[in-house]
Amino acid sequence: MPSKSSTAATKGLDNLFLDGLKDIYYAEKKILKALPKMAKAAEGKEVSAAFEKHLAETEGQVDRLEQVFELLGRAARGKTCPAIDGILEEGTEVLEEYRGTPALDAGLVAAAQAVEHYEIARYGTLIAWAEQMGMADAAKLLKATLAEEEATDEALSTLGEGGVNERAMQEAA
Amino acid sequence: MPSKSSTAATKGLDNLFLDGLKDIYYAEKKILKALPKMAKAAEGKEVSAAFEKHLAETEGQVDRLEQVFELLGRAARGKTCPAIDGILEEGTEVLEEYRGTPALDAGLVAAAQAVEHYEIARYGTLIAWAEQMGMADAAKLLKATLAEEEATDEALSTLGEGGVNERAMQEAA
Repeated sequence: MPSKSSTAATKGLDNLFLDGLKDIYYAEKKILKALPKMAKAAEGKEVSAAFEKHLAETEGQVDRLEQVFELLGRAARGKTCPAIDGILEEGTEVLEEYRGTPALDAGLVAAAQAVEHYEIARYGTLIAWAEQMGMADAAKLLKATLAEEEATDEALSTLGEGGVNERAMQEAA
Repeated sequence: MPSKSSTAATKGLDNLFLDGLKDIYYAEKKILKALPKMAKAAEGKEVSAAFEKHLAETEGQVDRLEQVFELLGRAARGKTCPAIDGILEEGTEVLEEYRGTPALDAGLVAAAQAVEHYEIARYGTLIAWAEQMGMADAAKLLKATLAEEEATDEALSTLGEGGVNERAMQEAA
């Protein structure tokens, strides 16, 4: 590996793109581990089912990221992502602090939406960078995942506003 | 303060809402400290100006949160938010790893968009909860901030796609 000083001047969008891929690859793998715990903890069947559905999607998203690494001719490898670690840590806090309360599911839905928005931000950036570099195939794969993340976020909003938040309020009275 | 066991069964949406307010209040205060560093580090005047503009907005957002605390009759107080700590840590990493390279600004814009999306997720949830509880005044304040966060995210996308990403690529060649 060349010394930092010799490479700094040439670090460009391709380096950012590879770092970003590693970041979200680590994040998706962490999410794969977190979702079954959230699905198991949820009180409502609809909330649990939403997490299970997104677990299946996340497996496909990991697969797409591996295809993007392949397009780059690089081994698929994650890089510790303190952001997703922090976001999931807050989800665990909600789970511990609200377990057995009427507000648990509303808290879990909120935690999942924070995860989705992190992914929406990162995939949006990666798509813009891939397009800038003329990597149409990579952009297409990343767009397929972004569409799933956005749909999941909307489905979670609908769940929250469609009864989960109300139950958290009424039962606590 | 009552013991945890005596309150667990009655923990509801109002508790989640207060916890969420404390979380984003801590986050906004952290962002207030991070933005001047990002503005100073940015190479491009437009990127720097975007961070400065959002710094001014963030001060108003902190003020709105304090008004919401007041509506609740609670002291404005933050609660450590590992999510924003992790997101800002990644921003600092980009700053250190890409300083002096053509890709710095593209990395900083991406880091700022991750921050915006965290806020968009949290304010969206807080608005849904405030509306569920019939807190129209609180919802109105939070919506004003959400609109600013969404506009900032869009402005950052426009900056990235309007030259920042291109410069990161061309100059690295």
